[in-house]
Amino acid sequence: MGKHTVTHLALSGGIGGAKLSLGLEHVIQSPKLMIAGNTGDDFRHMGLYISPDLDTLMYTLSGRSDPERGWGLAKETWSFMETIKEMGGETWFQLGDRDLATHVERTNRLNQDEKLSAITSLFCKKYGIKAQIIPATDDPLQTLVETEGGLVSFQNYFVREQCKPKIVSLQFNGSETAKPCSDLEQVLSSSNLESVIICPSNPFLSIDPILSVKGIKEGLKQNRAKVIAVSPIVGGDAVKGPTAKNLRDLGYPVSALAVAKYYSSFINGFILDKRDEHDASLIESLGIKVFLEDTIMTDLKSKIRLAKRVLDFSKSL
Amino acid sequence: MGKHTVTHLALSGGIGGAKLSLGLEHVIQSPKLMIAGNTGDDFRHMGLYISPDLDTLMYTLSGRSDPERGWGLAKETWSFMETIKEMGGETWFQLGDRDLATHVERTNRLNQDEKLSAITSLFCKKYGIKAQIIPATDDPLQTLVETEGGLVSFQNYFVREQCKPKIVSLQFNGSETAKPCSDLEQVLSSSNLESVIICPSNPFLSIDPILSVKGIKEGLKQNRAKVIAVSPIVGGDAVKGPTAKNLRDLGYPVSALAVAKYYSSFINGFILDKRDEHDASLIESLGIKVFLEDTIMTDLKSKIRLAKRVLDFSKSL
Repeated sequence: MGKHTVTHLALSGGIGGAKLSLGLEHVIQSPKLMIAGNTGDDFRHMGLYISPDLDTLMYTLSGRSDPERGWGLAKETWSFMETIKEMGGETWFQLGDRDLATHVERTNRLNQDEKLSAITSLFCKKYGIKAQIIPATDDPLQTLVETEGGLVSFQNYFVREQCKPKIVSLQFNGSETAKPCSDLEQVLSSSNLESVIICPSNPFLSIDPILSVKGIKEGLKQNRAKVIAVSPIVGGDAVKGPTAKNLRDLGYPVSALAVAKYYSSFINGFILDKRDEHDASLIESLGIKVFLEDTIMTDLKSKIRLAKRVLDFSKSL
Repeated sequence: MGKHTVTHLALSGGIGGAKLSLGLEHVIQSPKLMIAGNTGDDFRHMGLYISPDLDTLMYTLSGRSDPERGWGLAKETWSFMETIKEMGGETWFQLGDRDLATHVERTNRLNQDEKLSAITSLFCKKYGIKAQIIPATDDPLQTLVETEGGLVSFQNYFVREQCKPKIVSLQFNGSETAKPCSDLEQVLSSSNLESVIICPSNPFLSIDPILSVKGIKEGLKQNRAKVIAVSPIVGGDAVKGPTAKNLRDLGYPVSALAVAKYYSSFINGFILDKRDEHDASLIESLGIKVFLEDTIMTDLKSKIRLAKRVLDFSKSL
């Protein structure tokens, strides 16, 4: 299980990041790919520990994710939620019957002091996932959203309020003491690491919580590996989710350039969508190499194609 | 919520006891009936607190129990279990998707230090159950089965081993310190209590764990209320479950007489099935009044009829 075998590390949030991660899993041989998922969204609901981004990664890479909804499992049923509703329980967060298997098993193991990283590895093995998915940290980390109406938990903002409140700032509770999970720590200090891929995830809600963990951003800077970000902005808008809105909330222009600038202290390359070509020279002027590509991932083929481009680009740097 | 309003107390295990309890609920007005369920079968499975007898009581009295299986909820689905199986998890104990709503909600509340009795009351309210179902005790109580092959937990014996091992003896772990739940304690010392009904449940696996809780058997003896047992043996055999086998294992004859004798120190009356009429005079010779009746409860009508007979018999004593 030597982590020195890992040559490629992806940092990922949920849906968009999972799409590219699936492509990467197809083009990078088994023990060489590690995917560190955001855990700032994790929370306990009805006593169950839920880790939305790790789940989306696991479900996507095991081919079990629901192709329509984009989250959760295919062939899902909703008897549990129906019954909770009948009982007058909390229904704002949807938990499918199949999805519950993950939450119940994970919560049981966490309550017996197993580490989230070990549990995630075990689940990946059981689901037949070849890449190593890990949480960025095994320590508590909680994204809190300061909105104009006050401080709310991530799920309150994201699910309950459907991202409607304007974000004033973000806090990552626990980041002062959280450490990278030990496998990630080893990889970040490994001389065999060739590239780090910042997936096309929300910079503020998905990537920043990962980078807030002490040692991760420093690791990216110190490691000889090339760091490449894939733009979450395509054609001047977000592909999915509140990235565009969040840029606006926080006073940035809604553009790929703004994201590249935001990442500029630690990335070497930026995969820019062809639709945003007009930003290319301004990004290059920041000292960041740019690679133009069609970044929309509609099917497995386009995911694999983009993953290949990321690797080729990384080698060229 | 004064417990002085309770005039009838039933002690019940699972399926058979729940059938009579449903009948009792139809003939005894709302705040007057309390049903104390056995909690010796309770256990934690995958971290979820499961209380099979309380669940059967709640599901039966709310009209939600599955009419075919006899346990669990009607219109149940099994996506959770299918997924647990795919993940290589434990599948020996079946947990339906709807059933899980009870377990998840209860476990969450227990983990926040709510009492099992308070949670059960809350669920009964939400399910529209008029009788007050309570656990015999809020304290830990665990039925352990000493078999010829060694000591096993109740669920191991009952579900995993399907009651096949011969029982040598039973232990009720925790009974030395467990106290009746406070509502039950009040009812047992109330001068308004008119009758206590020992439901047609397994004497060793369902009723004994209740009676093992310090103060309950003593309460039955000291209270002026008449104590009536309904025979779990019909036509010289058990209606359902391992009662006949357990009598044999423990060296008793398989007969209603044996059960009446077993209960003789604390009951005043015994409802004997007409098929076992031959035992009547021998039971009466123990100083126990006998009432002959068709005790098989196939539909709601027969449950209500038997419940009425129990009340009439109690008044006549």
